[in-house]
Amino acid sequence: MLNLESDTTQAWLSRALGGMDEILLDHAHCEKKAASTALGLIFRYPKQHHMLRTLSELAREELEHFEIVLGLLKRRGIAYDKQKPSPYASQLLSCVNKQEPQRLVDTLLCCSLIEARSCERMQLLAENLEDQELAQLYQSLLASEARHHTSYVSMAIHVMDEAKVRTRLKEIALYEAKILEEAPPMVRMHT
Amino acid sequence: MLNLESDTTQAWLSRALGGMDEILLDHAHCEKKAASTALGLIFRYPKQHHMLRTLSELAREELEHFEIVLGLLKRRGIAYDKQKPSPYASQLLSCVNKQEPQRLVDTLLCCSLIEARSCERMQLLAENLEDQELAQLYQSLLASEARHHTSYVSMAIHVMDEAKVRTRLKEIALYEAKILEEAPPMVRMHT
Repeated sequence: MLNLESDTTQAWLSRALGGMDEILLDHAHCEKKAASTALGLIFRYPKQHHMLRTLSELAREELEHFEIVLGLLKRRGIAYDKQKPSPYASQLLSCVNKQEPQRLVDTLLCCSLIEARSCERMQLLAENLEDQELAQLYQSLLASEARHHTSYVSMAIHVMDEAKVRTRLKEIALYEAKILEEAPPMVRMHT
Repeated sequence: MLNLESDTTQAWLSRALGGMDEILLDHAHCEKKAASTALGLIFRYPKQHHMLRTLSELAREELEHFEIVLGLLKRRGIAYDKQKPSPYASQLLSCVNKQEPQRLVDTLLCCSLIEARSCERMQLLAENLEDQELAQLYQSLLASEARHHTSYVSMAIHVMDEAKVRTRLKEIALYEAKILEEAPPMVRMHT
């Protein structure tokens, strides 16, 4: 359902469980960036009427999650500040074709896979965290990540023939798996 | 309460009432840009913890209004697309000081005045539109614009001494009035 081509390793899970303060901070940044990406697509593609409302609703939901994580950081005394991002998202987006409409389709599919990977990892966190407040947070958020994954794929199918979209989704998912395989051992949601 | 240094002219109102399709399209773009500006401030000032949640909530509200206006455009058969913006916002922001913390204060005050001017003009539209659906739309939105005006001023007062903020607000409001006095006669919310 998530269209991922690899499972997250035990190594990532161990690093994450051992560095939850850093993961939470990264999580706040991820929600903010996801909102910004959705809003950026509204700016870039005003003629794609089918996706304007969906993207706006999606951006609002990401901001709501950003606020939830901010509240949690505050209660735990973790200062919100800049944080060196993992190279994952920019590496993934480097596969985007320069020509339209492929550019839009590829961008939407990259977004869909970022959401899918978040969902898969939030599930792992929810199942393995001893801290019940955090386990419940991830349990409560993972359904939206799965929904966002599906939304992005649906938007792509609005732009291009479904069979072509599915083939391209598989290609990009294989690339996404390769990026993670070779990623630096940082403590981040996507690495 | 809105801290504006001029009243909107009858000339603007006549132009707007005579070109509501264009005003509605501009309104959609304004809501989208307001959300983007608020989100941009979250990115630029991660250390200003006092304003992160307020800006995120504000961006969500602007996006909700964007969706409302999009729905209205659709029902009226007005195609959402790019539109040449009025020079108002970029002219206003040209007064922003390059040095922090004045840069942040000035930016927040410019945002506060854009919201104030929207509020003042939405009130005029609500009172003068014969089209009851549109009159009600503007009546329903103007309270949020007033609230956003106040929020932006409050955030500025968090960064700098209130007396200094009030003096600077008056200066920028005088500049805003001058921009509108010399503005081209376009059919836009802010011109």
